[in-house]
Amino acid sequence: MQRYFTNKQNGNTFLLNDADYYHIKTVMRMTDNDNIEVVFKNEVYLCSLAFVGNNIIVNKMTKLDSQKDLSKEIILIIPLLKESKMDYILQKATELGVSKIIPIDMERSIIKLDKSKETKRIDRWTRICKEASEQSMRVTIPIITELKSWHDIFDIDGAKMLCSTVEKDNTIKMFLQSIKNYDRIIIVVGPEGGISPSEEKLLISHDFKPVTFGNRIMRVETAPLFVLSSINYEFME
Amino acid sequence: MQRYFTNKQNGNTFLLNDADYYHIKTVMRMTDNDNIEVVFKNEVYLCSLAFVGNNIIVNKMTKLDSQKDLSKEIILIIPLLKESKMDYILQKATELGVSKIIPIDMERSIIKLDKSKETKRIDRWTRICKEASEQSMRVTIPIITELKSWHDIFDIDGAKMLCSTVEKDNTIKMFLQSIKNYDRIIIVVGPEGGISPSEEKLLISHDFKPVTFGNRIMRVETAPLFVLSSINYEFME
Repeated sequence: MQRYFTNKQNGNTFLLNDADYYHIKTVMRMTDNDNIEVVFKNEVYLCSLAFVGNNIIVNKMTKLDSQKDLSKEIILIIPLLKESKMDYILQKATELGVSKIIPIDMERSIIKLDKSKETKRIDRWTRICKEASEQSMRVTIPIITELKSWHDIFDIDGAKMLCSTVEKDNTIKMFLQSIKNYDRIIIVVGPEGGISPSEEKLLISHDFKPVTFGNRIMRVETAPLFVLSSINYEFME
Repeated sequence: MQRYFTNKQNGNTFLLNDADYYHIKTVMRMTDNDNIEVVFKNEVYLCSLAFVGNNIIVNKMTKLDSQKDLSKEIILIIPLLKESKMDYILQKATELGVSKIIPIDMERSIIKLDKSKETKRIDRWTRICKEASEQSMRVTIPIITELKSWHDIFDIDGAKMLCSTVEKDNTIKMFLQSIKNYDRIIIVVGPEGGISPSEEKLLISHDFKPVTFGNRIMRVETAPLFVLSSINYEFME
């Protein structure tokens, strides 16, 4: 069933945003008494629609048992990438259960963010994650932060991993199997060419463990999906 | 270093295809004595370039130790999908070590392959896999077969898994941990909406084990990457 997120309710009805109303009416072509799922405060509700003139009324019916999200919080730290790769990572990382994505201006990243456009970019990124969350039936939408610098992330507690291009021995598998007791995993993925030696040194000095993917050489947009897939796999119940 | 595949040699030189010569000259702007890697019969050779008039001579220098490929042969069976999703799966599956991809005309697949265009499509798919193999430093290029029907695949031996939308208990992790001794894994991924109940019944009757991804609901183009990532992770040395 189609799922929509909202944080607005009015008595026994939910208020959706205009894009969602448009989607219900024009894309899905729903009519009176059709049902949708609405996620409100991480709970899923079965709702029925009523079309009153130009308005769509979303009537709350019953609360549904909702699919569990990943038991661990996953923070993904990525470089700025060109729009298509960025959009792609946001959508797939959402499907794979990421909790938060922090873009960082990394040394070897060739893309720079025009400060004046940052809010617009973040709105766009948030929209992509909301739609991917609805599609993949999540009960939470990942948070995308504004552009940060390395020093903003060193205070975050958790199991810290960096995808290294030089590490040869410590595999992602050894790492994930060593952090079962952590509730939060923080992952750094570098740009094309990887993070620079000085960045790697800095991160290691702040408790990030460099890991290798073994024999695989992946594109920058593939690495986060491999890491998130591995986390889902390792901690699958 | 840039890597190219070829199956043609002439004495101590390799012959590449025109697209590769164009790439060397116009895209990479290489010049005399620049080095490239050439993969010939699954072996990697360091080569140096000589530009003679309009010709590029690729001189074999030394054989290099090549990155190991996955220890298991992985056959991925997918529905026909619209071009962008198809291209995307081919590229990412190649990065993640797939050995062979078999497209099948599945019940719920809405895309049909125009027979007259099939050869052209397969050429295009093969090209995508060749480029992805070069980029991800593989020593083999995955094989894409022509469109097959279910009955063409039932004779292939190996550990057989199908991504099920109804299976609740048997996770992909249980499955992969139960097939350590198999040299070949055969994976069926369905189209939007999954494979049909009758297809699932047919596959199960031919020893395919239905598996669940746990709580994750993924788009059709994400599922194969999750499965291939899981295989890389489980069998990582």
